[in-house]
Amino acid sequence: MNCEIIGVGTELLLGDIVNTDAQYLARELAAMGIVIHYQEVVGDNPERMRACISNAVSRSDLVILTGGLGPTADDLTKEISCEVMGAELVLDEDILEGIRSYFSSKGIVMPESNAKQAYVPKGGTVFANRNGTAPGCAVEKDGKTVIMLPGPPRELKVMFEYEVKPYLAQKTGGVILSKQVRTFGIGESDMAQRVADLLDGENPTVAPYAKDGEALLRVTARAETKEKAEQMCDETIEKIREKIGGYIYSTDSLNLEQTVVKLLREKGKKIALAESCTGGYIAKRITDVPGSSEVFEYGIVSYSNEVKMKLLGVKSETIEQFTEVSEQTAAEMAEGVRKLSGADIGISVTGISGPGGGTEDKPVGLAYIGFSHSGGTYVHEVRTGRSLDSREYNRYVTASNALHMVIQHFYERDE
Amino acid sequence: MNCEIIGVGTELLLGDIVNTDAQYLARELAAMGIVIHYQEVVGDNPERMRACISNAVSRSDLVILTGGLGPTADDLTKEISCEVMGAELVLDEDILEGIRSYFSSKGIVMPESNAKQAYVPKGGTVFANRNGTAPGCAVEKDGKTVIMLPGPPRELKVMFEYEVKPYLAQKTGGVILSKQVRTFGIGESDMAQRVADLLDGENPTVAPYAKDGEALLRVTARAETKEKAEQMCDETIEKIREKIGGYIYSTDSLNLEQTVVKLLREKGKKIALAESCTGGYIAKRITDVPGSSEVFEYGIVSYSNEVKMKLLGVKSETIEQFTEVSEQTAAEMAEGVRKLSGADIGISVTGISGPGGGTEDKPVGLAYIGFSHSGGTYVHEVRTGRSLDSREYNRYVTASNALHMVIQHFYERDE
Repeated sequence: MNCEIIGVGTELLLGDIVNTDAQYLARELAAMGIVIHYQEVVGDNPERMRACISNAVSRSDLVILTGGLGPTADDLTKEISCEVMGAELVLDEDILEGIRSYFSSKGIVMPESNAKQAYVPKGGTVFANRNGTAPGCAVEKDGKTVIMLPGPPRELKVMFEYEVKPYLAQKTGGVILSKQVRTFGIGESDMAQRVADLLDGENPTVAPYAKDGEALLRVTARAETKEKAEQMCDETIEKIREKIGGYIYSTDSLNLEQTVVKLLREKGKKIALAESCTGGYIAKRITDVPGSSEVFEYGIVSYSNEVKMKLLGVKSETIEQFTEVSEQTAAEMAEGVRKLSGADIGISVTGISGPGGGTEDKPVGLAYIGFSHSGGTYVHEVRTGRSLDSREYNRYVTASNALHMVIQHFYERDE
Repeated sequence: MNCEIIGVGTELLLGDIVNTDAQYLARELAAMGIVIHYQEVVGDNPERMRACISNAVSRSDLVILTGGLGPTADDLTKEISCEVMGAELVLDEDILEGIRSYFSSKGIVMPESNAKQAYVPKGGTVFANRNGTAPGCAVEKDGKTVIMLPGPPRELKVMFEYEVKPYLAQKTGGVILSKQVRTFGIGESDMAQRVADLLDGENPTVAPYAKDGEALLRVTARAETKEKAEQMCDETIEKIREKIGGYIYSTDSLNLEQTVVKLLREKGKKIALAESCTGGYIAKRITDVPGSSEVFEYGIVSYSNEVKMKLLGVKSETIEQFTEVSEQTAAEMAEGVRKLSGADIGISVTGISGPGGGTEDKPVGLAYIGFSHSGGTYVHEVRTGRSLDSREYNRYVTASNALHMVIQHFYERDE
């Protein structure tokens, strides 16, 4: 069964809000083995809505619309979808009663305009809204299905989970399952070249893409059962591992910070941070992960030389001789924060994020990452090669490199 | 001129990433007076791409594609768009040289597959990529224009701002200019009600929207000149100020952290941070702002009680008697970091971000923000009211509240 998703609403079209409904539905549908061919966004305009919905119904088995179920005059999703599907809208007294009591429970009398929401397609399926007034619904005709869902994510997600999934489950045989292979330190094109022969596969499919300075492969298998699909993915991931294993840090869809926290917890180790140019970005990403307090206690944002010397014990001579952006300073920062905190691993970052501060031999995008542990201290140099408007990118990628050093530290020790 | 935006990529279609490019472009285009009728997303599938692009060209004057300009075999945006527009792709030696030097600046030899990115439509317009290897381009035919831009937001935004805007400006008469009115501490619907009479305006238009826990108004004016449009926006912003002035923290499209750094620089004050539950998020956001090192030197991520006591001087009795998530601990943290750093303002945060750790009287989403300055120390309590899956939201909104306290501190002193 192939599907397309249509977001209805001028606020989407003009970019006032980002279309997270489409992403949510796409993920859920793909996981159910429903193939998505198109997504669209159309404004609250009858002619264009009619054209868009007719076109979708003509080329897809399943069309899911989000938004346009509200009480106001420009909410037309039900009216136009039912017109296209040749279904009649009829008043459902029970739903009307439900909407009335939803308002009275808040001590408000239902505005008459909301009665509009109690009209549903005759002979269609109705989906209850547990977080709002607008019910969802589905109409079927000639093997085509049109589903209409409310736009607000908290209404949509609950309705999809509890009402729409069971409805769709009857329609779909088989399962599609995707797994992510996350790499670090290799570009998308280089990665794609090395696994080129796998990219032509029909089932599982292997698709490369880049995200936040990382190259990823998405392995997607279609099978009768979840177990079989999982097995097919794993077999393909093994083939990928043979080609680029050294760059893979995760095949369980954990990102860098999640992998770092997982490894530190497994090994019972603690980490401390001394951040200069990343200014707390590494600490922020580590503490994004629930339970990170087990492995992370000390973070110092040393955004001046005084802090580096006073709190981290960096020698003034070191800064005078080599400047604050140097291997030597990074090393002393990492050792200093490890000593201060008593953690097993001390990580430090000092560099030039931009836009200003770059020089010929120390350009914007340059950073030194110090890594200190019981076995010693070493420094890794990062050059992002980007300057203009890349402060966020430089900081993010530098933080990613620091996180990856922790992962490599543990992986190498396992080998 | 009417326009549609097509996002190309299976990662978008399957919901691996959310389509923020479409939102960004929609906003920018609307602000330029270009009417958007449709947005689509299509996967890396030649037939469906061809159908989608042909359909778009047939009904819209301007079609903007994002993504699919990568070096891999499934990147087909240029190939298929040019086929539809009847344009030939030719190798541009200069671009090829640029891509080679981009790689060599990172100390890497260009993978041969990247040469694909140096092919551009014959007789078309080329847009330089300042943050990546894939150039953008535009082809025109019979009054129709197709623009192809890279998918990664960092590449797309800079290219659009510096290359595509000037290109489009020639095509559109007059100027459309938008200004943002940013508020804090008021909900979107409440805000919308208070400025309701302004929301019906034709020119300027006033549109409310919510973002990251803040309520914003976008004021958009259309005029012959930039100056005139600016003046129209400012007059409307004055009317808005009369109604909700107390909630407005910025009308120059600066966000919270940018406003904080601007104010601290103007006043010549320095700030220091002691973060527990936000784990470096405030430091990260402040150091997102270029030049923040002038006003921010010391950040402590105190993710354990030991750090709070050892570095910040929080009394063990305070933690024993009131726990680490308490007004008293927040106050001592703020005073402690101010003392340690010698900064003018000390900010502290301690709270429960979730998913775990909540109790009846101290639920997930609760945080105490300490504010210490020469005039004394006070504590602000935040309750986000969210628990389930809201760790990121709780941390972000708590950080926003802390930043807003700094802004209020200065605004109140001006009055």
